[in-house]
Amino acid sequence: MHPEDLLKQVAFIKEIDKLKYIQRKTKLFNSDRPENDAEHSWHLAMMAIVLAEHSNKPVDVLKVLKMVLIHDIVEIDAGDTFLYDAAKNHTNTDEEMVAAQRIFGLLPDAQAEELISVWKEFEDGQTDEAKFARSMDRFEPLLQNTSNDGGTWAEFNVPYHKVYEKKKAINDGSAAIWKYAAQLINESVDKGILRKDGA
Amino acid sequence: MHPEDLLKQVAFIKEIDKLKYIQRKTKLFNSDRPENDAEHSWHLAMMAIVLAEHSNKPVDVLKVLKMVLIHDIVEIDAGDTFLYDAAKNHTNTDEEMVAAQRIFGLLPDAQAEELISVWKEFEDGQTDEAKFARSMDRFEPLLQNTSNDGGTWAEFNVPYHKVYEKKKAINDGSAAIWKYAAQLINESVDKGILRKDGA
Repeated sequence: MHPEDLLKQVAFIKEIDKLKYIQRKTKLFNSDRPENDAEHSWHLAMMAIVLAEHSNKPVDVLKVLKMVLIHDIVEIDAGDTFLYDAAKNHTNTDEEMVAAQRIFGLLPDAQAEELISVWKEFEDGQTDEAKFARSMDRFEPLLQNTSNDGGTWAEFNVPYHKVYEKKKAINDGSAAIWKYAAQLINESVDKGILRKDGA
Repeated sequence: MHPEDLLKQVAFIKEIDKLKYIQRKTKLFNSDRPENDAEHSWHLAMMAIVLAEHSNKPVDVLKVLKMVLIHDIVEIDAGDTFLYDAAKNHTNTDEEMVAAQRIFGLLPDAQAEELISVWKEFEDGQTDEAKFARSMDRFEPLLQNTSNDGGTWAEFNVPYHKVYEKKKAINDGSAAIWKYAAQLINESVDKGILRKDGA
């Protein structure tokens, strides 16, 4: 260890405190209080711990936890993108890459490289760990919206087919969770908290 | 997997949302906004990831992450205990054990047992993982208070020797971090944001 490594790590630890101020569109369960990115990241980590057994493929849970804990850190600079935002695609943008370089770049070089690599792997969504981590990121707001009379689906008038299209990525991480999630989506239409296409 | 396991896990996932409403005494960095337990748990997890190399003994980082992510969940029922609270000792109380049984008990039996065991291991503080996880839990508010002109030390008039006595547990997890932390504590006295004994 270089003597200055700890100082770099502390600078990073202080910088990422800003994640607690970034509000998401989705609200806490049975609530109208917006969730922030730090709370969201914690919740995904807890979900990954208790739901890992449902992953389609055996996953390295430590890798999955790193992914979900850091996946939104770039939003400190780049801001939160709403899943159903039509103007801005929720993909690995140039802006997010610059943010990753700046924020993870506060760390000692080897650590910065490792965490940027883990973040890219999550964004690319190709490995078993990334697929499972991304399924957690899709599943949490679904559970929140169904507990909030439609939540952001109702608030932003998102129709069934868009929800279904975005949420089916859960299947890539876990067929078992997707079976349950698809059922929740269909029940939401029946309950009138998610509008049918054209309705 | 039993078919009802996923439903039990979802019930647990919904229940622990309440951690986001539990306010700590310490405030965010350079801020007067109290931190909540979910944000705190996320921050400790991030600290454990980037600081694990400073642990006195090599640690199972996955175990450490589980510890810090779940360590405050019992506070959903038992409430937050301030580190310097003279009336209530911050130890594994009966109330917290009942809370652990109820909340982790929402999970399938094997998972409930595992997480209660991880939580007890953290509380007992005897293993290398528990010592390192506990050092993160002591280090974060120290960094917050030094960024907030003394923070809770000033607010609750906590003297140097009490801070030093509580924080020296960092040394059990990481001598390198304790060296830095002790320096921060001493500098805080010099800066007048932590009062000397008898002062």
